[in-house]
Amino acid sequence: MSKHGIIEPRRLKGFRDYMPDQMEKRLEIMDLIRREAALAGFRSIGTPALEYAETLMGQGSDETDKQVYRFKDNGDRDVALRFDLTVPFARFVGEHQGTLIFPFKKLQIGDVWRGENTQKGRYREFTQCDLDIIGADTMMADIEVLSVFIRILSGAGCGGTTMALGNRRILSGLIAARCPGLTPVQETEVLIALDKLAKIGPAKVADLINAIPGAQGGADQLLADLARHHADGDSDLNYVRSIVAGNADAEAEILRTEQVLKILRQIASGRSVTLRLDLSVARGLGYYTGIVFETTLDLLPSLGSICSGGRYNDLAARFTTRELPGMGGSVGLDRLIAGMEELNQISASAEQMVFVAVATQDAWDYGFSLLNQLRNKNLRADIGLVPKLANQFRHADRIGATHVVTVGTSEVAAKTAALKDLKTGTEVRDLSLADLFSKL
Amino acid sequence: MSKHGIIEPRRLKGFRDYMPDQMEKRLEIMDLIRREAALAGFRSIGTPALEYAETLMGQGSDETDKQVYRFKDNGDRDVALRFDLTVPFARFVGEHQGTLIFPFKKLQIGDVWRGENTQKGRYREFTQCDLDIIGADTMMADIEVLSVFIRILSGAGCGGTTMALGNRRILSGLIAARCPGLTPVQETEVLIALDKLAKIGPAKVADLINAIPGAQGGADQLLADLARHHADGDSDLNYVRSIVAGNADAEAEILRTEQVLKILRQIASGRSVTLRLDLSVARGLGYYTGIVFETTLDLLPSLGSICSGGRYNDLAARFTTRELPGMGGSVGLDRLIAGMEELNQISASAEQMVFVAVATQDAWDYGFSLLNQLRNKNLRADIGLVPKLANQFRHADRIGATHVVTVGTSEVAAKTAALKDLKTGTEVRDLSLADLFSKL
Repeated sequence: MSKHGIIEPRRLKGFRDYMPDQMEKRLEIMDLIRREAALAGFRSIGTPALEYAETLMGQGSDETDKQVYRFKDNGDRDVALRFDLTVPFARFVGEHQGTLIFPFKKLQIGDVWRGENTQKGRYREFTQCDLDIIGADTMMADIEVLSVFIRILSGAGCGGTTMALGNRRILSGLIAARCPGLTPVQETEVLIALDKLAKIGPAKVADLINAIPGAQGGADQLLADLARHHADGDSDLNYVRSIVAGNADAEAEILRTEQVLKILRQIASGRSVTLRLDLSVARGLGYYTGIVFETTLDLLPSLGSICSGGRYNDLAARFTTRELPGMGGSVGLDRLIAGMEELNQISASAEQMVFVAVATQDAWDYGFSLLNQLRNKNLRADIGLVPKLANQFRHADRIGATHVVTVGTSEVAAKTAALKDLKTGTEVRDLSLADLFSKL
Repeated sequence: MSKHGIIEPRRLKGFRDYMPDQMEKRLEIMDLIRREAALAGFRSIGTPALEYAETLMGQGSDETDKQVYRFKDNGDRDVALRFDLTVPFARFVGEHQGTLIFPFKKLQIGDVWRGENTQKGRYREFTQCDLDIIGADTMMADIEVLSVFIRILSGAGCGGTTMALGNRRILSGLIAARCPGLTPVQETEVLIALDKLAKIGPAKVADLINAIPGAQGGADQLLADLARHHADGDSDLNYVRSIVAGNADAEAEILRTEQVLKILRQIASGRSVTLRLDLSVARGLGYYTGIVFETTLDLLPSLGSICSGGRYNDLAARFTTRELPGMGGSVGLDRLIAGMEELNQISASAEQMVFVAVATQDAWDYGFSLLNQLRNKNLRADIGLVPKLANQFRHADRIGATHVVTVGTSEVAAKTAALKDLKTGTEVRDLSLADLFSKL
C-alpha cells in the first residue's frame, strides 16, 4: 500500500456494488413503483441523506440508535445518516406543512444506512420505497395505500404474494380482554412478543408474554384466540368481536377492517396478490395505531416481509402541534430482489440491440450517422469502438447484440448496409436504409 | 427543546428537501438521461455512498480532500462519503475488471457530498450523472460519449446549449512551444491557470502563468494563440497546427479532434446543441489526457458548465496494472435545473388527472372499483379520502385534477357516473362506464 503502488480495491463490509444486470432490475422495479404511485396521484419528494442527529436519534428502537452512522461534520455539527425515510419525512412535514396540500400523498425512494451485523440479505446500505398518505384517518386512505401496493406487487413479476392484514387496535382490544390492566408500556411489550410469532412459534411467545408483569396467565388464551382461523385462512373476526364486545374502539376497528378487506379483495381480483386477515400481525414498532400489514412471497415465505407498514396517527408530533394522522408502508426493494433472484425470477433482457460494425476507416462518419438514425427511431443501438472489424463482431456478441449492421466503403458509396440476425445467422446485404429500418 | 416538547424542524445548511414539483422535474431529467444512455447501450451501475477513506482521499484536489465528510464508523473504520462518482468507479473497475466486458459503457447516477462553503447553486449534497466508456482510447469512444450528451441536452428542454471542445494534448503542444522546458507539475499549473480564463480574464491569467517558474514570458504569446478564432467561433486549428509542427502527438490529436468535431456536428444537426472548438478549454483536474469539454446554457452562460468531462487514460491505475483508458463526462443535474428554473423553463405538469368523488357512504365500494379501472387504463386517477363531498371537490381542485367523476347511491344502482370537466365546467350525468371511459 505504498503511495504509488497498487492498492487492493476493497469495499466496506455490508456495502454493495450493483453490477449492470442487478442495477437495471432495481431501476425497473423502482420505475414500476414510481409509475403506479404517479398513476394514483402520489407525489415524489426527496430529503437529505444527512440530518442533525437530534432529528433522528431516539425515534426508532434502541437498537436503531446504536446502528446509526453518527459523527461530527467539519463544522462540528452533530450529524447522522438517515436510518429510514419515516423520521426525515416527519421533519419534512413539520417544516413544510404550510405549503403541502393535505391529505398529502407521497412517494419517497431513497437509500438508508444502518450499521447492522451483516448477514444474508442484511446490508448496511439499502433502499426504501415509502408510500404514505398524511392528513386523513379514514378507511379510504387505508384502502388507497394498500391498493397501490397491491398493484405494485402484482406488477413486479415476483410470483404470488400474500398480504396479511392485522389491526393494532383490535389486537389491543383482545389484549385488554385477556391481560387486563396492562400499562401502555407493558402492552407494547406484548405486541413486540407477538411480532415474533412467525419466527419463534407460540410456545416461546407465550413464555415471553408470561414474563411481562401484569400479563401473566393471559398469554395462552390470547394465543389461542389469535390461532382461530376460518377455513379460508382468515382470522375468526366474529369470535374476536364477541371477546371485545362493549369495547367501542375495537368494535369500530373491526367494522373498518372488514370494509377495507372487502374493497381490497375486489381490487386484487385477477391479480397475483392474496389478502388474508391475520390479527396476529403486530409489527414491532410502537407507533402503529390501526391497520398493519406484511407481505410475503408465496414461494419463499421464510424470506420475511417484502412490503409492510400500517396506520400511525402521530407522524410529526415532535415538530408540530397539528395532528397529522398517516397511513403508509414500504417496499423492501433489496429483500424483494433477493427473493426474486433466489426464485430465478430475474431474467436478462431479451430486448433487441442493434450493433453497427464499421469495416473501413472511411465509413465511421456514415456508421455514426446510421447509429444516430437508429436511436432516433427508439431502437437500442451500439457501435464498434475499436478499428478491427473482427474485434467489433466479437464485442457485439459478448454484449448480447441481436443484430449487426455492417458498413464499409461500398455501403457508403451506395448508401446501403448489410444486416445480420445473430439468432438465425441470416445475413442480407445491400439493403437500402429504408429497407434496413423496416426490418428492425 | 425539552424531550417531550415541540422542536423546530431544521435541515443542515447546504442540504435540500425536494418538493414534489422539483423532485418530479429531477426524476424526469434523470429518466431522460437513463433512456438515452440505455438506447446507446450504456449500462447502469451503482456503488456505495460510503467507502474506505483510503479509497477516496488524495484523488481529487487538496480542496476536495478538505471538503470530504470523513469519520470513524462504529467498527472504528476510517470511512468517508463519496465526493464524486469517478473515484468510486475507479475502485469498482479495479475490483470487477474480471467480469466486466470492455470496452465497458457505463451510466451512474448518484448523490455525492462535499462540505463546501454554501453559495448560490452550491450545495453540500448534489447529484451527478456520469457516462463513461472504459477500455478504448479511440476517436469512436470520444464521439460516442459526446453524442449521447448531445442527445440528452437537446432533449432536456433547457433551450440552446453550446458544447465547447478542447484537447489537453493540443494544449500541451502549444504550451511546450510557447513555454518550453516545463516540468509536468509546472505544465499542470499552467493548465489550472488557463481554466480560470472565463472567470478572471486573460490579463489575470497571464499574471498567474508568468508567476510559474519556467513559464515566464510565454504567457502573452500563449494567450494570443488561444484567442485566435475563426469567424464561426472555432479556434484557429490550422494556425495552431503550424505552431506545434513536428510534435507528432499534438498533430495526431489535431487530426482526431477535427474528425470528432465533424461527426458530432452531423449528429447535432437539427438539435439545440451547438459545437464549438475552443482550445482554451483546459478543465482544472490533472487527469485529462485528450479531448475535454464543457457546456453552457446559451441564455445563461454565467451559470458555468452544466455538462463536462473528457478523456483520461489512467482511471484505475491505483488498483490495477491493467491499462484502462477512459472517456467520460457528467451532467450537473442541480446546476442544469437551477438554470432552467432561472429561465422559467420548468412548467407544472398539464397532464390529465381524474378525481373520483364519492357522494354517499354506500358508494365507496363502487368508487374504488371505478378508480381501479381508470388506473388499469393508464389514466392518472385519485379519489376522495374524506367523507364530505364538498371537501372532496375542494381537494380535487387544489391538487389540479382536470376531471371529477362523481358517484353516489343512484350511480351505484344504475352502474353510471357523472363526469365534470373542471376546465370548461361542463358536467354530464348518468354516463355508462363505457361512455365515461371513452370520454377520458
